[in-house]
Amino acid sequence: MTDQQAFAARIEGADAPSRYVLVCEHASHTLPARWGNLGLDAAAQVAHIAWDPGALGLARGLAARLGAALVHAPVSRLVHDLNRAPDRPGAMPARSESYDIPGNAAITPEDRAARADAVYTPFHAGLAALIARRIALGLQPVLVTVHSFTPVWHGQPRAVELGVIHDDTRPGDDRLAREVLAAAWAMTSLQSELNAPYSAADGVTHLLRLHAVPYGLPHVMLEIRNDLIATPEAEAAMADLLAPVLARALAATEGGA
Amino acid sequence: MTDQQAFAARIEGADAPSRYVLVCEHASHTLPARWGNLGLDAAAQVAHIAWDPGALGLARGLAARLGAALVHAPVSRLVHDLNRAPDRPGAMPARSESYDIPGNAAITPEDRAARADAVYTPFHAGLAALIARRIALGLQPVLVTVHSFTPVWHGQPRAVELGVIHDDTRPGDDRLAREVLAAAWAMTSLQSELNAPYSAADGVTHLLRLHAVPYGLPHVMLEIRNDLIATPEAEAAMADLLAPVLARALAATEGGA
Repeated sequence: MTDQQAFAARIEGADAPSRYVLVCEHASHTLPARWGNLGLDAAAQVAHIAWDPGALGLARGLAARLGAALVHAPVSRLVHDLNRAPDRPGAMPARSESYDIPGNAAITPEDRAARADAVYTPFHAGLAALIARRIALGLQPVLVTVHSFTPVWHGQPRAVELGVIHDDTRPGDDRLAREVLAAAWAMTSLQSELNAPYSAADGVTHLLRLHAVPYGLPHVMLEIRNDLIATPEAEAAMADLLAPVLARALAATEGGA
Repeated sequence: MTDQQAFAARIEGADAPSRYVLVCEHASHTLPARWGNLGLDAAAQVAHIAWDPGALGLARGLAARLGAALVHAPVSRLVHDLNRAPDRPGAMPARSESYDIPGNAAITPEDRAARADAVYTPFHAGLAALIARRIALGLQPVLVTVHSFTPVWHGQPRAVELGVIHDDTRPGDDRLAREVLAAAWAMTSLQSELNAPYSAADGVTHLLRLHAVPYGLPHVMLEIRNDLIATPEAEAAMADLLAPVLARALAATEGGA
């Protein structure tokens, strides 16, 4: 199997009818044999530093309820974070929160290029192809990235439950995010905040800058606190809660509200 | 041969040492058999509406002199303009300057999607892969798109000889273009202008928005009047003139000048 096949973007519902295209960059904690275990013990290999627990289950639930396409990652972000350019420290971090990642400590430019070739490039090529096709068909795609965050960060508990984030490259790129936030406050009891616990200034909108901004596509990044989506039942309940929020927000932008 | 092979980006000097990566989206007037002749007569098939005459020869000359990588298109822009999103009227124009393009007059969404899949997506995937690899290697790529324009447009002669164009998505994205313009005025007698005969407002920076802006890469689009590069000798002479202009401009940005 070639890298293009092994590490291709995983696509579900490519021809789904909704304008929404969901993306889950941190869906997987898989560490392919080529890169060993990066020097991590068994617990660290499945900790939140390796993936976003619950995010794929939630994204699948949202895709099913909205009739949306879903694109997700096959590999741990510790090999290559698909939401970071290949030269950024966070793309192959040597340290993440309280964990050292020994296998990323002495990485050479050639190692970086090999990981970009194998992991970053095929994923973004697959997503770009899907978006271009849907644009050509006149489907006016709307991009939503689905993430989760840990309830305790460097020992501090986080009160926010739902973060709603937008890119900041162009004025007006916050429009869908503001409608999502408004709908979340109106329709749920989640503690919802704009551009929390991260924002574009932290570099978390790289994927949106690659795939949404050049085409002027409406977009939003969702961050859900991972203790709220810790079981399949909780993922489904959160999808029940948030699918109507996304539907209302998009309708509001389409209506010119 | 698959579409991915038949219509892949043509890449020369992928490992070339310069920071410069040159791109020629309108290098070819090839009309693949699949789309017939689009209803054009023999003269129209090789007119400036189908490609940018002289641009590939100039780009190759610049790449050789600068030690730069070059990425160019294998197919006429009348099948799919690689510098336009697939849903834009100019991507598959039914009319261009004074020419009708009958094969593009009644194109369906499915036709658009098939052209995007076959032509647009493989080209941009190839360019994206090259840029990601060079970013990972720490080479800090600088993107230059090379175009030519017709000396007479709708019957009006054009005085500008060299157009130097930048994207306008982010403040500061004009920096390299201003240095190129300054160097062109200092080092050549070409009638050189900023954002002429086109500008970002005309949609001509789509490729730069896809590949340069998301990574914050310095970039510039060059437009050369095609009567100045009408023979291989003229292409080489223009490359002799403009390679030092590009070298000086990049050095000026690197020096913080």
